[in-house]
Amino acid sequence: MNIDELQTPCLLLDRGRMLCNIARLKNHLDPLNSQLRPHVKTAKCPEIVRLMLGSSSDPITVSTLKEAEQFAAAGYRDILYAVGIVPSKLPRAMSLRRNGIDLSIILDTIEAAKSVVSACDKYKASIPVLIEIDSDGHRAGIRCDDPMLIEVARVLHDGGAELRGVMTHAGSAYKHSGAKALSNMAEQERAAAVTAAEQLRDKGFPCPVVSVGSTPTATFVETLSGVTEVRAGVFVFQDLVMAGLGVCDIGDIAISVLTTIIGRQKEKGWILVDAGWMAMSRDRGTASQSVDQGYGLVCDQAGKPYPDLIMVDANQEHGILALRQGSQSTLPDLAIGSMVRILPNHACSTASQHNCYNVLDVDNKAMDQWQRFSGW
Amino acid sequence: MNIDELQTPCLLLDRGRMLCNIARLKNHLDPLNSQLRPHVKTAKCPEIVRLMLGSSSDPITVSTLKEAEQFAAAGYRDILYAVGIVPSKLPRAMSLRRNGIDLSIILDTIEAAKSVVSACDKYKASIPVLIEIDSDGHRAGIRCDDPMLIEVARVLHDGGAELRGVMTHAGSAYKHSGAKALSNMAEQERAAAVTAAEQLRDKGFPCPVVSVGSTPTATFVETLSGVTEVRAGVFVFQDLVMAGLGVCDIGDIAISVLTTIIGRQKEKGWILVDAGWMAMSRDRGTASQSVDQGYGLVCDQAGKPYPDLIMVDANQEHGILALRQGSQSTLPDLAIGSMVRILPNHACSTASQHNCYNVLDVDNKAMDQWQRFSGW
Repeated sequence: MNIDELQTPCLLLDRGRMLCNIARLKNHLDPLNSQLRPHVKTAKCPEIVRLMLGSSSDPITVSTLKEAEQFAAAGYRDILYAVGIVPSKLPRAMSLRRNGIDLSIILDTIEAAKSVVSACDKYKASIPVLIEIDSDGHRAGIRCDDPMLIEVARVLHDGGAELRGVMTHAGSAYKHSGAKALSNMAEQERAAAVTAAEQLRDKGFPCPVVSVGSTPTATFVETLSGVTEVRAGVFVFQDLVMAGLGVCDIGDIAISVLTTIIGRQKEKGWILVDAGWMAMSRDRGTASQSVDQGYGLVCDQAGKPYPDLIMVDANQEHGILALRQGSQSTLPDLAIGSMVRILPNHACSTASQHNCYNVLDVDNKAMDQWQRFSGW
Repeated sequence: MNIDELQTPCLLLDRGRMLCNIARLKNHLDPLNSQLRPHVKTAKCPEIVRLMLGSSSDPITVSTLKEAEQFAAAGYRDILYAVGIVPSKLPRAMSLRRNGIDLSIILDTIEAAKSVVSACDKYKASIPVLIEIDSDGHRAGIRCDDPMLIEVARVLHDGGAELRGVMTHAGSAYKHSGAKALSNMAEQERAAAVTAAEQLRDKGFPCPVVSVGSTPTATFVETLSGVTEVRAGVFVFQDLVMAGLGVCDIGDIAISVLTTIIGRQKEKGWILVDAGWMAMSRDRGTASQSVDQGYGLVCDQAGKPYPDLIMVDANQEHGILALRQGSQSTLPDLAIGSMVRILPNHACSTASQHNCYNVLDVDNKAMDQWQRFSGW
């Protein structure tokens, strides 16, 4: 099917670019002797995750129990649920484990550790736990030198839960750009996790797993000494935020939103399209970068960017395209009814606005439609 | 069901507040002798729209053909599709009309008018068209004094399409606040539409429908002379952006996101919850208002706001709650596993992140679950 036969707005996935993105990260990580545990929150689609992994026995990371349940149903068995566990979610987690899924969970408080111990007792079953480490002050976790690390480990260990290791995510990597800064962030992330693991082992606690990662740090990490696995998600599609950080080129971005020209306001230099924030998401992740891409960078129907043409504003089902401020380029003369593609700021948030991927082959024909799920 | 039995994050709908919001707008519009044509893009849920209207013969507005198809299936017959039509959407539009739906469409270019005329010819059927008028330079439409208005009307009329009237949406009302400014915007919106209708009638074209509206202008409009119908959507739920404009009080906001405390970073004054931007949306609509509510205003489980507590940052499945800058309030001591509610910046975008509404009765019990649809 030619893409101009698709109803707009809709999400396109360039399969070739995606396969290159996957191969690039794998080639980088392979010599570093660490397992990739891809984060499936970006894709939420088993067909895509199958292309990221050799087999369904390979490990994955999830951000919701819905993802864990959906990927368990798709055959995946080794699943890390990487958002701090709370008591109300333990019944669903235990249910997955009873069904043969090796689901592990994370936490960073004494209270959560106690609730896990209670659940192990109640369900007469253990559940593997990683303690979340704060490697950059970005969000959650215990700092590797905080005595609470040992206290939490003790609650888990003494209570009969399985202390499987430590994990960290240097989310502030998204605020650094370039190979050197991101390689430094990767080392900071690695060192925090490995130090925490050593602290635990020094006190006699087991700590077989040391898990780190984000797309920016995984892309530029130079050594993974002491690390057992690397997590990354957005690398599979890449996006304008990643391009702004130097993690990828704009030509690597594998998803885009196909949209139709519905109007223009010539004296204002505006072109109106039928993709608004409902299709793009409200994510303005490039607003704080050196090149602000508005709600996305506009490409022709074949995927080639127009110089300086971005979505400058978005309402629910309307996007306004215009040249970025100060541009010397000329607004392309696009007919009502013709189509363009918009590259997204943030692959996770744009993809989440859609129910399926229209998968493109090398000739830019829509060869398949892959469903993605949503919700919790 | 008590709400603490719900899995988080999830969307709550306070039915009583919603009914008050509906009644308030209706009471305001009733004496102004204009029909309400609610915009169903906010709710995307037939159960809710049923509470907005007397019967399924009452008119509605939609922003996508999916909405038109879903509400047609739910029994609605008089549907305005209020986004500029393009040729590729005419087959679906014509199909709805063949099935007895009085679907009307909008356009603002000669090209679109010609494509509608061609479709009428091809399908041996007419389709009613409203010409979109630009009343405030906000987005789309033809200015009421632009000669193109008459040209477009002539293409439609001579080509055998049904020219049903004019419509406008003063979207820049969202950038004004207070009764006086918004009443002025409403008058500007009314005057532009009525002037355009008069221009058309002067030239001998029929123009039975004069359609205007947005929640802010509908709330403060003082006269609707010459207007036949008013469109508004977000009023059904209200939100922090509307409260910031003075359109509603914070206590009127009928939807919120229920979330669980998953962690804290005491020295930073942070509380972490399991609602991130996936549950709230990335909408930062209050960022440009006098009170920036971050990603949302935090309330206790019963719905009472905590002073100055907002979601200051959001990742995909993590929200960071903190006191707003400069606050003299004290961070509440919330236990891991306890729940709070977050009021949204923008009801349309937050609701669109969820597959259903958990409907609360007067005792804050979850009495029902209403599905909402998504996609195009």
